[in-house]
Amino acid sequence: MNVVKAKKKALLYDTTLRDGMQGENIFFSPEDKLKIAMRLDDAGIHYIEGGWPGSNPGAQAFFDLVRDKQFKQAKICAFGSTRRQNSTCEEDGNIKALIDSDAPVVTIFGKSWDLHVTEIMNNTREENLAMITQSVSYLKAQGREVFYDAEHFYDGYKANADFALETLEAALEGGTRCLILCDTNGGSLPCDIDTITRKIIAHFKNYDDVIFGIHTHNDCAMAVANTINAVHAGATMVQGTINGYGERCGNADLTAIIPILALKMHRNCISEENLAKLQNLSRFVSETANMQPIASRPFVGHSAFTHKGGVHVSAIMKNPKAYEHIAPELVGNRRRVLVSEQSGKSNIVYKAKELGVDLGDDESKKTLIVNNIKEMENYGYEFDTAEGTLKLLMEKLTEQYQSHFDLESFRVVVEKDKERPCYSHAMIKIRVGNETEITSAEGEGPVSALDNALRKALATMYPGVKDLHLVDFKVRVIDGSDGTDSKVRVLIESRDTDNIFSTIGVSEDIIEASWQALADSFQYKLALDHKK
Amino acid sequence: MNVVKAKKKALLYDTTLRDGMQGENIFFSPEDKLKIAMRLDDAGIHYIEGGWPGSNPGAQAFFDLVRDKQFKQAKICAFGSTRRQNSTCEEDGNIKALIDSDAPVVTIFGKSWDLHVTEIMNNTREENLAMITQSVSYLKAQGREVFYDAEHFYDGYKANADFALETLEAALEGGTRCLILCDTNGGSLPCDIDTITRKIIAHFKNYDDVIFGIHTHNDCAMAVANTINAVHAGATMVQGTINGYGERCGNADLTAIIPILALKMHRNCISEENLAKLQNLSRFVSETANMQPIASRPFVGHSAFTHKGGVHVSAIMKNPKAYEHIAPELVGNRRRVLVSEQSGKSNIVYKAKELGVDLGDDESKKTLIVNNIKEMENYGYEFDTAEGTLKLLMEKLTEQYQSHFDLESFRVVVEKDKERPCYSHAMIKIRVGNETEITSAEGEGPVSALDNALRKALATMYPGVKDLHLVDFKVRVIDGSDGTDSKVRVLIESRDTDNIFSTIGVSEDIIEASWQALADSFQYKLALDHKK
Repeated sequence: MNVVKAKKKALLYDTTLRDGMQGENIFFSPEDKLKIAMRLDDAGIHYIEGGWPGSNPGAQAFFDLVRDKQFKQAKICAFGSTRRQNSTCEEDGNIKALIDSDAPVVTIFGKSWDLHVTEIMNNTREENLAMITQSVSYLKAQGREVFYDAEHFYDGYKANADFALETLEAALEGGTRCLILCDTNGGSLPCDIDTITRKIIAHFKNYDDVIFGIHTHNDCAMAVANTINAVHAGATMVQGTINGYGERCGNADLTAIIPILALKMHRNCISEENLAKLQNLSRFVSETANMQPIASRPFVGHSAFTHKGGVHVSAIMKNPKAYEHIAPELVGNRRRVLVSEQSGKSNIVYKAKELGVDLGDDESKKTLIVNNIKEMENYGYEFDTAEGTLKLLMEKLTEQYQSHFDLESFRVVVEKDKERPCYSHAMIKIRVGNETEITSAEGEGPVSALDNALRKALATMYPGVKDLHLVDFKVRVIDGSDGTDSKVRVLIESRDTDNIFSTIGVSEDIIEASWQALADSFQYKLALDHKK
Repeated sequence: MNVVKAKKKALLYDTTLRDGMQGENIFFSPEDKLKIAMRLDDAGIHYIEGGWPGSNPGAQAFFDLVRDKQFKQAKICAFGSTRRQNSTCEEDGNIKALIDSDAPVVTIFGKSWDLHVTEIMNNTREENLAMITQSVSYLKAQGREVFYDAEHFYDGYKANADFALETLEAALEGGTRCLILCDTNGGSLPCDIDTITRKIIAHFKNYDDVIFGIHTHNDCAMAVANTINAVHAGATMVQGTINGYGERCGNADLTAIIPILALKMHRNCISEENLAKLQNLSRFVSETANMQPIASRPFVGHSAFTHKGGVHVSAIMKNPKAYEHIAPELVGNRRRVLVSEQSGKSNIVYKAKELGVDLGDDESKKTLIVNNIKEMENYGYEFDTAEGTLKLLMEKLTEQYQSHFDLESFRVVVEKDKERPCYSHAMIKIRVGNETEITSAEGEGPVSALDNALRKALATMYPGVKDLHLVDFKVRVIDGSDGTDSKVRVLIESRDTDNIFSTIGVSEDIIEASWQALADSFQYKLALDHKK
C-alpha cells in the first residue's frame, strides 16, 4: 500500500494593500486596490488585508467596493488597533470602523513589548491586556473571525518573555484562534525567530485549534528567511506583500515565499496553475504602484533566470539544472541568455539562433564575432540590452547584411539667445539606391531634431517607417572623469505593431552615438518590413 | 577579574568587480574598478576579487592598474578556473593569466557536483580531482596564496556527499588552507546551509589552520540569511558584493552582511569608523555602475530608516528603539520622517546654514524656497547631489545673487559626412559688465565644444577659471518613454584647488541641460574667487 503523506497546509495572507502602502512612494487608490484584490484572489491567495478603515477615507472606500464582490477563495480582512486605552469597545471609533467595514475577518494588533506599553504609551500591563482581550471578544461577538497580530513580538519576548506571553494568552482568552507573531522592527536573526517560535508553539501545544502566523520585515535583508524559519518551526500562516513592498525596507516578499513553500518545502498552499501566474501578478502590482520592477527580484524578476557568463551558458545548454535551481516556467518566468564581453562561442550560437541569424558552420566566423563583441564592449558597447544592433552586427560579420539606406551628410544646429530656451534643428541627406532625399526638421533638442529629420527623409521612400515608434531613450556617460570629452552610450528601444527591439551607439560625441542607435533602429525595422 | 571574550574574526571578501559584473546591466571599466577597489580598501575590506584575467581584455587591464598601488589592508585576488581537463598547468592559458596578473591571492573554482563533472564536462572523477590538486599546488609553487571556491558545493553534497568531500580533500592536498563553499545556483534553504556547513567543518576539524568561507546567491531571496547561517556554523570568510549585484538575482549583499556581523553577531570584522562609511560606499558603487540605487535596501537605502506611519513617527520621537532596530548613523545613514510643509522649512534652514547662505528672518522667503524646490524636483532636478546649483538658487530667491557673466548667445553645430566621425564646434558670445567677448571652440562632441567655448570666453576676463576642472559628467534620461523628447538631467562635478562642488541642469534638450550645469559651475567658481 502506498501511503502518500498529506502535504502540510500553509495559509497565504497578503497585506500589500495595507502594510505595503506604508512604503515610500507606494500609493493605491481604492479602485487600484480592488483590481489588485481580484488578481490576488485569482492567484489563490487565502486572505487579503484591505486596509485600516477609520485611519483615512481611502481605506474605508475599498471595503465599500468589495462588500458585494464574489471571491473564489480569498477572505477580505480589515486591519486596526485594539481599543484605545482607558476606554470601551463600544465607544471606540476604530473598533466601530472595523465592524462597519463588513469584512468577514478582522486583524487587530496589540503591544507585546513592555517598552511600548510603559514608555511609549504610558500604559499599565493590566490595561494593555484588557485592551487585547476585550477587543478580540467584542469583535468575535459581532460575528467576525478575529486574527491577532502580536506587534514587536520577538523584541518583546527577548526583553521580557513573561510579559510577551501574557499578551498572547490575553488574545486567546478573548476568543481568537490565530496568533501572528511579528518581527515589526525587522531586526531579528533567523536563529532567534526559530528558537522563539518553537518555544511559543510548544507553550501553547494544548490548544490544538490554534494556528500561528509569522509577519516579518526586511530591515536585515532576511524577512523571507525568517518567514521560512518560522514555518519550519510550526507556523502555518505567512503574512507578506507582493514584491515585498512596505515601510522602510519592506515586508516579507510573497513572490519569493510562495514558490519556496510550494516547491522546496512541499507545502499545500497554491496550485501549479496559480503558481505559474506569479510573475504576471508581480508585474501587475508594480505597474499599478508605478514602481520600477526590480530585474533581479528572485523568481519573478526579468533577470532571475538570465545567464551571462560563458561557462554558465554552455552548461545550461546541456542541462538547465546546472545553473537553475528551478524551471522558470513554474513561476511564469523564462530563461534568457545575454551576450557580453564575458561570452564564449556558446552564447553567440544561442543568441544567433534566437535572433534568426544563420551563422553557418564556419567556426572562424563565430570566433570573429566573439572577438568583435569583446573589443566593442571594451570600448563601451553593451550588447546584452541591444539585440537589434547585435543582430545587424552578426549579419555584417557574416556578409549577410543588407543596408536599406546610406547617409550622405547631416548637420545639427543648437542655438540659444540670452534667456530664451535652446532651439534645435537638423538637415539630413540620405541615399537609397540611385535616389537621394534631403530635408530638415526641428526637435526638442539636437537628438530629437536628428531623429525627426531622418524619419522624415526615410518616410518619402519607405512609408512603413511611420509604424516605428521610439519608446525609450537612455544615455550613459562611460567614466565621467574625462568630463565633457567622456564617451557616451546611447540605448534606444523601438516598437512597431509586432516587435520590440533595442539598438545602441557609443562615442565621445552624443550626436554620433545617437546617430548610430537611430540608424540601426531604422535599418532593423526596414529589414523586418522587407522580409514580410 | 573581568574576562573580556575576544570577538571572533570574520573576513570580508568582495567580488563586486568579478561576480558583481555578471549581473545584467552591470559594467565597470578598468578605471571604474580601480576607483571602487580604493574605496573598498578604505572601508576596511580584506580581500578584493578584481576579475578573471584571461577571460577578456578588460579584466587583465585592472590587474595592470593595481600592480603598483598601495593598499591599507586589502589584498587583491585574481579569479579563475582550474586548469583545463587533460592538460597541464604549464600549458594552460588561464593559469598563466592568473600568474601574470601578479595578484598576491588567486582564487580558483572547481567542480564539486558529479552532474557537472560527468554530464556537463564529460570528465572523469579522477581527472576532476587531479585538476583541482594540480592547479592549487602549481599556483602555490608560484608564490601565490590560493583560495579554493567549491562551486555548487551544497547541491553537489546533497547529490553525492562523498564526491563533494573528495573535491575539498583534493584542494587541501594541493596546499590551500581556505575552502569556500558555494551555493552557486542560490537554491538552498537556510537549514541546508546550516546542516551541511556544520558537517563539513566537523569533517575537517583536524586541520586547525584551515578556514572556511561561504559564497551564496540570492535566487531564493535568502543569500544574506544563508551567509549568516554559515557563519553561525563556523565559517570565517564571507564572500559577497556591494549592493548584492551579480548574476541572475545577485550575490550575497555585503551592505547587509557587514552590519549584521558587526552589530548583531559581534564579529571582529570592521571598525566603527569604517562601518559608518557603508552608505557612501553603497552609493559610490551604484553611481559608478549607473544603477538606480534601491531606496528600500536594508541598512544603506534612502528609505531604510524612513518613517511614514503617524504612529511610528510619534513613537520614535520618544524612543527610536521603538521602530528602529539599530541607530542609522552606525552605517552612515540617517533617519527620515515624511511629514508636512512645516518640517520642510526646517530642512531648508539647516541646508542654507550648511551652504553659507543667510536666509534672514522672512518666513515667506523660506516658503518660496521650499515651494520652488518641490516644483523643480517634480520637474526632474535633484538637489541632494547638486549643492552648487542649490546655493545659487537660494541666493537668487533671496535677492543675494551676483551674476559674474551673462550669455548673449551661442550656437553649437554638429556635422557628419558619410562615414566620417561627427565634427562639433561652438560659437559663444558673453557679456561682463560693458564688455563682450565672442569666440569659438571645437570639442569631442557638442557639449564638449560648448564647454571649451565658454571657458575660452571667460578666461579672457577671469584668468582664474583655468583652475576650474570638470571632473565628472553624468547624464540621466528622466523617464525615457518620451523617446528622444525625454527630459534629460545633467550633473557636473567640478573642482578647483580647494573646492569640490556639483551643479545640475534639466531639459528636453541635452545642450540646454548641459548649459545650465556648466554656467552654474562657472558662476559658482567665480563667486568663490570673488570672495577671496
